[in-house]
Amino acid sequence: MEKYILWNGDIIDSKEKDGLISFDDRGYQFGDGVYEVIRIYKGALHLLDLHLDRLFRSMKELNITPPISREQFIDELGKLIGHNQFDQDGNLYVQVTRGLQPRAHIYNPGSKAVYYAKIDHFQKPVEILQNGVSVTVQEDIRWLRCDIKSLNLLPNIMAMTNAYHNGFYEPLFVRDGIVRECGASNFFLVKDGKVITHPANHFILNGITRLHVLRLAKELNLPVEEREIDRNELYTADECFLTATPLEVVPITHIDEHKVNGGEVGRITRKLQKRYEQSISNDLYTF
Amino acid sequence: MEKYILWNGDIIDSKEKDGLISFDDRGYQFGDGVYEVIRIYKGALHLLDLHLDRLFRSMKELNITPPISREQFIDELGKLIGHNQFDQDGNLYVQVTRGLQPRAHIYNPGSKAVYYAKIDHFQKPVEILQNGVSVTVQEDIRWLRCDIKSLNLLPNIMAMTNAYHNGFYEPLFVRDGIVRECGASNFFLVKDGKVITHPANHFILNGITRLHVLRLAKELNLPVEEREIDRNELYTADECFLTATPLEVVPITHIDEHKVNGGEVGRITRKLQKRYEQSISNDLYTF
Repeated sequence: MEKYILWNGDIIDSKEKDGLISFDDRGYQFGDGVYEVIRIYKGALHLLDLHLDRLFRSMKELNITPPISREQFIDELGKLIGHNQFDQDGNLYVQVTRGLQPRAHIYNPGSKAVYYAKIDHFQKPVEILQNGVSVTVQEDIRWLRCDIKSLNLLPNIMAMTNAYHNGFYEPLFVRDGIVRECGASNFFLVKDGKVITHPANHFILNGITRLHVLRLAKELNLPVEEREIDRNELYTADECFLTATPLEVVPITHIDEHKVNGGEVGRITRKLQKRYEQSISNDLYTF
Repeated sequence: MEKYILWNGDIIDSKEKDGLISFDDRGYQFGDGVYEVIRIYKGALHLLDLHLDRLFRSMKELNITPPISREQFIDELGKLIGHNQFDQDGNLYVQVTRGLQPRAHIYNPGSKAVYYAKIDHFQKPVEILQNGVSVTVQEDIRWLRCDIKSLNLLPNIMAMTNAYHNGFYEPLFVRDGIVRECGASNFFLVKDGKVITHPANHFILNGITRLHVLRLAKELNLPVEEREIDRNELYTADECFLTATPLEVVPITHIDEHKVNGGEVGRITRKLQKRYEQSISNDLYTF
């Protein structure tokens, strides 16, 4: 982690970071908060507007009063990058919890939300971008508001850890026979030249990279479909890939024992990876 | 809150309580932890064994290594009560999170779990025990491991708060047309002399008071059924009530607009309340 963190409007030394959080923080007792992970390329924030849109949407859905305005967030995140003189590639993590209240299920909508942000170095994961990953199908047991980027992540972390210990990169969640998304990323399938992904509704998180890849696909004149994917379609897909902010576009070469496209990375996946790479500089916010 | 709290084996002054929690505590970033609320009657813990059984079960299900043994928990909770010279009625809250790790979905099973406990005064809620409460039916959108008493409580707190603002004491969760439980309590229905409640499976938390009331009903020779209750049965029930550790047995007199038993508290509910009250002294752990 980089030296300085943002804590409720102050830039503080991360060595002094421990011991600021209260027992009464509803984030600690209920997971009552939301977050974003924003990609940093050479010190600039990628797709910042879309991330802030979602952060504010998540707060709204949970009836959390934003502690500061959107403009103040931009200002303070800029200070965080500036103080760290951060000009590398990394991830910016920002979290907002409902604030301090004596523990009770029923919340008081008036409390001042608590927020912090930090930066971690993160290099482009070259090996998996080149060679792809394996995923494993798991039953989706999450709640039915997966569209909110909340701190209630137990089903995700349990499934991610299980997948990892079984030799897979991520779980692929299936609910009611429909392929939803992965443990920490969105899922795409390519069939007969069409780029297909789950509609943005309560069953998935509407990933910023998902939105961006859909836009890039349209720019490339690739036909795009947002629709439910039956589990059986996995085994006749021409290509599959996942998208996530830190990872960009990652080919999926295996779904459990099944080899996608004979285990080779597909043509359209490569095309989208290349376009993603080329387009990065168009969507950077430099302070 | 009482003056002293238990924090990782130490009894500390709660005025110095803030500032012990780390940003790297997985409880803060993922709600990655479990908890119990244990009822205290005149300084003694009620049904302690059953609460510890469930605490250890919850940890096991989430693959959290207990930070201390069961015997040590009993010892340290005793010290907490002793230091506070607590001889009133109250609730003891104890929470265990997976521990400190740099933020990542995939957890390291080796980290030392973090735990704390605190005591709050709480008087028997005489008015609602006497007159009953109203509940409101809401769609159950929680994850499918409601049997784990975890910190991932967003759907509960949102539903509890909505119910409260609409004039109800708790939401009554229905999933797939089946009545599951309330927002922070279990649901019971009485029909033709039978005491009926949802089976203890992944759809509900197996409440300690639920277990205890089932035992008391059997002692009273009341026929007991653990089975799914169709939503339609709500409107022909003879009596309904909810059970929760802080509340004991609370009559439900209204389900939305519908009056249960003409809005009067039923005979079997009263019988179970009385038996509960009389039996308390049999299940107290005094230090």
